[in-house]
Amino acid sequence: MAELKALLFDVFGTVVDWRSSLIDDFTAWGDAKGVRGDWAALVDAWRGAYMPSMDEVRRHPERGFVILDDLQRQSVEPLAARLGITGLTAADFDYLTRGWHRLHPWPDSVGGLTRLKSRFIISPLSNGNVALLTNMAKFAGLPWDVILSAEIFRHYKPDPETYLGAAKILGLAPEQVMLVAAHNNDLAAAQTCGLKTAFVPRVTEYGPLQTRDFKAEGNWDYVVSDFDDLAGRLGC
Amino acid sequence: MAELKALLFDVFGTVVDWRSSLIDDFTAWGDAKGVRGDWAALVDAWRGAYMPSMDEVRRHPERGFVILDDLQRQSVEPLAARLGITGLTAADFDYLTRGWHRLHPWPDSVGGLTRLKSRFIISPLSNGNVALLTNMAKFAGLPWDVILSAEIFRHYKPDPETYLGAAKILGLAPEQVMLVAAHNNDLAAAQTCGLKTAFVPRVTEYGPLQTRDFKAEGNWDYVVSDFDDLAGRLGC
Repeated sequence: MAELKALLFDVFGTVVDWRSSLIDDFTAWGDAKGVRGDWAALVDAWRGAYMPSMDEVRRHPERGFVILDDLQRQSVEPLAARLGITGLTAADFDYLTRGWHRLHPWPDSVGGLTRLKSRFIISPLSNGNVALLTNMAKFAGLPWDVILSAEIFRHYKPDPETYLGAAKILGLAPEQVMLVAAHNNDLAAAQTCGLKTAFVPRVTEYGPLQTRDFKAEGNWDYVVSDFDDLAGRLGC
Repeated sequence: MAELKALLFDVFGTVVDWRSSLIDDFTAWGDAKGVRGDWAALVDAWRGAYMPSMDEVRRHPERGFVILDDLQRQSVEPLAARLGITGLTAADFDYLTRGWHRLHPWPDSVGGLTRLKSRFIISPLSNGNVALLTNMAKFAGLPWDVILSAEIFRHYKPDPETYLGAAKILGLAPEQVMLVAAHNNDLAAAQTCGLKTAFVPRVTEYGPLQTRDFKAEGNWDYVVSDFDDLAGRLGC
C-alpha cells in the first residue's frame, strides 16, 4: 500500500459552515444598511443555483471556464429580485458575493488541520476559485500548505480532471492522496480516480433543509466524527 | 494609489540559498554513498542549464509546457557525465533532482515572511513547479498563503502571463500586487506588467560566480536590505 502523502479537503460544508456564516453576515449587514430581506431564503436559493451553474459550464466548454465568484455573482441578482430584496446596488451584490470568502470554520477544522499538517500536505480541493479560497484561509485561519482549486484544472468537481490533476500537480500517485469530504458523491468520484477517501459527517450543513450525507454511504477508507478524530486515526 | 494586497516572491536566490543548500546536500549524500564528484561544479553547471532549458520550452509551445522538475532531470545526467561523476543510477539522479525541493531559506526569510503574512497575502511566484514549491515550503518552513507557479500559468518568468496571471488568479489589479526579488530582470518584467516592485540584494547567491544583482538597477518601489527590513517598511 502506497504511503499517504497528501490530504485534500472539500471546503464548502466540510471545512466551513457556509450556511450559518452567510446568514449571520448578511443579517448584520442588512441591519446596518437598512436593507430588509429573508436572508436565509436567499442563501438557500443561492446554494440551490450552485450545481446548475456549474453544469452550465460543463455543458459549454466552448465558452471557457468560468470561476465560481462569477457564477455566484450572476446567480444572486435574479434570486434577490425573486425574493423581493430590492434597492441593492452593484457594489452591494459584490459584497454579498464576497460573503463566500468570509466563511467560518466548523469548531474542529483549524485544530484538526493544524495537527494533520504536521504529517501530511494539506490542501483544499474545492470548486471555489483561488482568490476565494486564499481570502477564506486568511479570514478563517486555515493553515493550508497549498491551494488547489477547480480554477487551476479548468474543471469543476466531480469531473475526474480535478482529482487526478491534484495528484499530478503534487507529483503524487492517486493512491498517495486522500480526499476528505462530508459528501458521499464527492468521495465516490475521488475513489473512482484511485484516491483514498475519508468521510466526516456535517449533518447541520444545510440546516433544516439537510436531506442527505447524514452518514457514510460508500466503502470509504476512513469514516471519522471530525477532523480531530481523523488526526488521531492517522497518528498526528 | 491602489492599496497593496499581495506580495509575490521570486524563490530561487530570493527566498532560498539554492547553491549552498545543494552543494551541502550532495556532498553529504556523496560521502555517505561513496560517490566522489565536484558537487560545486555540478551545481553551478546545472544552474547554467536552467535558463536555456526554459527558453527551449518557450520556443516550442507546440510541445506543451514542461515542468521544472522534468527540465532539471533532463539536464543533470549529461552534466554529471561531462564532469566525470559516474556510476549514478536513475534513482540517484531522481534524488539529485529532488534536491531542488530541499533548499534552505536565507536567515531572514522565515521571520520576514511571517511578519509580512500578518498584513498581506504572501505567495511564491516561481519557475519551480507546484510540487517542488510545496515540498520546499514544508522542508524550509515557508508560511505561504497560496502557491503560485509558472506551472499554473503554463509560462515561465519573465513571460508576462506569469505576473498578470498571478494578479488575476488572486482577483487583484496588477498595482495591488508587488513582486519581491533579488533579480533586476525579474522586477523589470513585473514592472512592465504594472506590478509594484521590491529589490532585496542576495549578493552571495552565486558564490564566487556572482556577476550581477549586487544592487538595485531600476526604479523599484522599495529597495530593502532583507525581508525584515521590508516588513518594517510596510508597517508589519
